Amino acid sequence: MATLSRSLTAADRLKRLVVATPDRPLRLDSGRALEHVEIAYETWGRLSPARDNAVVICHALTGDQFVADVNPVTSRPAWWPRMVGPGRPIDTDRFFVIATNVLGGCMGSTGPASVGPGGQRWGVDFPLITIPDMVRAQIALLDALDIPDVFLVAGGSIGGMQVLEWTVQARGRVFAAAPIATAARQSAQNIGFYEVGRQAIMADPDWRDGAYLAHGVHPDRGLAVARMAAHITYVSEASLKRKFDRRLQDRSAVGFGFDADFQIESYLRHQGQSFVDRFDANSYLYITRAMDYYDLAADHDGQLAAAFAGLDTRFCVFSFSSDWHYTPEESRNLVRALNAAGCETSYVSIDSDKGHDAFLLEEPEYEAAMAGFIDAAAEARGLPPRSAGP
Amino acid sequence: MATLSRSLTAADRLKRLVVATPDRPLRLDSGRALEHVEIAYETWGRLSPARDNAVVICHALTGDQFVADVNPVTSRPAWWPRMVGPGRPIDTDRFFVIATNVLGGCMGSTGPASVGPGGQRWGVDFPLITIPDMVRAQIALLDALDIPDVFLVAGGSIGGMQVLEWTVQARGRVFAAAPIATAARQSAQNIGFYEVGRQAIMADPDWRDGAYLAHGVHPDRGLAVARMAAHITYVSEASLKRKFDRRLQDRSAVGFGFDADFQIESYLRHQGQSFVDRFDANSYLYITRAMDYYDLAADHDGQLAAAFAGLDTRFCVFSFSSDWHYTPEESRNLVRALNAAGCETSYVSIDSDKGHDAFLLEEPEYEAAMAGFIDAAAEARGLPPRSAGP
Repeated sequence: MATLSRSLTAADRLKRLVVATPDRPLRLDSGRALEHVEIAYETWGRLSPARDNAVVICHALTGDQFVADVNPVTSRPAWWPRMVGPGRPIDTDRFFVIATNVLGGCMGSTGPASVGPGGQRWGVDFPLITIPDMVRAQIALLDALDIPDVFLVAGGSIGGMQVLEWTVQARGRVFAAAPIATAARQSAQNIGFYEVGRQAIMADPDWRDGAYLAHGVHPDRGLAVARMAAHITYVSEASLKRKFDRRLQDRSAVGFGFDADFQIESYLRHQGQSFVDRFDANSYLYITRAMDYYDLAADHDGQLAAAFAGLDTRFCVFSFSSDWHYTPEESRNLVRALNAAGCETSYVSIDSDKGHDAFLLEEPEYEAAMAGFIDAAAEARGLPPRSAGP
Repeated sequence: MATLSRSLTAADRLKRLVVATPDRPLRLDSGRALEHVEIAYETWGRLSPARDNAVVICHALTGDQFVADVNPVTSRPAWWPRMVGPGRPIDTDRFFVIATNVLGGCMGSTGPASVGPGGQRWGVDFPLITIPDMVRAQIALLDALDIPDVFLVAGGSIGGMQVLEWTVQARGRVFAAAPIATAARQSAQNIGFYEVGRQAIMADPDWRDGAYLAHGVHPDRGLAVARMAAHITYVSEASLKRKFDRRLQDRSAVGFGFDADFQIESYLRHQGQSFVDRFDANSYLYITRAMDYYDLAADHDGQLAAAFAGLDTRFCVFSFSSDWHYTPEESRNLVRALNAAGCETSYVSIDSDKGHDAFLLEEPEYEAAMAGFIDAAAEARGLPPRSAGP
């Protein structure tokens, strides 16, 4: 909680822009509107004189805008340093990279922990938001920065859902798109896992019907359980076996009690405990709900291809063989729809035992394929070649 | 809670036997001993004059002894009626079928909700138990019933772990064994999922450090979350998609809130809520911990085949293709070890999209294979042929 309190205060020092005002409210899918929205963001590199080299990075559920630098609030390292930086596939010597904290998040963008119109923190009076709403706010930020077109939008997991949404909302403004380890619709199994997490949070008496910040408490226990349950889905059974199997934690025999005998228990408890120091429980409810609601085909009579019809964006879809959170099958469904819509589409299927989290980890073939896709797109766009690297 | 209170009272009327006394304590793997153990059980059919037709059924985590009849305490239907009954594969016209409630359980057998030596309910002062301890108590019950040999031991999931343990503990006394949808060791992923459940229970303030019964409360919210998380692992992604997909619950559009918009949410909430009415939270902690600790090879230098060396039991191992809780790969490892040990072993791999729960559901090939295995074993044992059925 110390860190979280710090983050809510330090958030005032984060870089951000107002993208909605009473005169220009942000209209939401729920029918409600937000009359004050700030979006926190970070940038790397320089915008070219032609303003044609912008790259938007979309973060996953618990990520933030600190793609390529240490987060100064949490001191956590950059979350995508292998992919974004000088000489990296998303080359900051070449591109102007922008990453935002999503609407509803807790790293400086307007969300349930923000102060609402009545002068109190929103809590669960904050309106429900959707993936399209998050992208609407990002597009408003790019408009505020006077960047009409985007060379590339990239992101994994729920970031990949935002990538898809960018291509259909900012029609004609996105040159290339890299949706990674994602799906065009949330599966029943994933809705189920996140419902478990939400129930764990809302069962914690310190949740106080969502008004915990006003009471000076925080549903740490529920949020930790939610994180533990979700974390298992981010890794493969094979990687858990390789990393932990049944090895014991700092002991030579089981303790015949409920302490963390096994390394996997200790690891999950640590994942849960460290998460509550950096994340707001209500943000977790709102962002997971946005994931549940995502079904890109739903507005097109269930025909996913219809969502992409007529797009001139070039796509490269990435999946990982052992990812059971957003399975390769979901990616293949997406690729089939893109092909059916006549979009220029590549599909990179990476053989990995690292599960869903592989998109954040060292996977040389994945990085090489991403670099190849981007370089070819940049050449087609007429951008200068990539730098020699660091 | 109404039903649970009823169950703890009604448990006094359940059929049971004392299998440990101060003179004959039950020695536990932890080094501790229980000086009073009662095991609740049910039987069907008649023991043959030669006492050679006994079948032991071992239940899964949340099951009980009411294999083939309605549970009179909870009014829940029999949990394995397709497999056990007159004319069924485990034919009660032919066999004397015995099912117990496991040691540590909450349907009449001694467990953490039982009154301990000080006159108070044990709570978490109850000693940690293991799968071998559970089987030790079952063997003591069979001894008390003067049944020296068992024709068949069968069970699924954690019941299958007990089956394996029976064959090695009651060496020379088990003619045939059917371990179903199980494993000889708990995987890291499964330890992780059950650790999430335990943390959810222990995070509930009403758990009261395990002494909730003394305080007249019950950690219902934590236990419900634990059940929801576990339940997802019992079903396959394909069956969730088939049964629920993204269908809404009693509404035509999402509600933009945290109510159960989706059928999968409503279903999981119901699973959680109905579970707390029939199960004791501390029993859930103890039984899942016993599962974590199970690793049959560990006492044999990690050589599973060594555990089975010299056994004359005939085995039939069953697995289900979409079971990701206890995977077919775990069953194949078991079969390899049985073969390496020279045991007479059949392996039945059932193609099913129903996930782990398939072992409880209608799967005609599974039932036919079980009937075939049992009929052949009975013939080899010299038992009379099966009845014509109901």
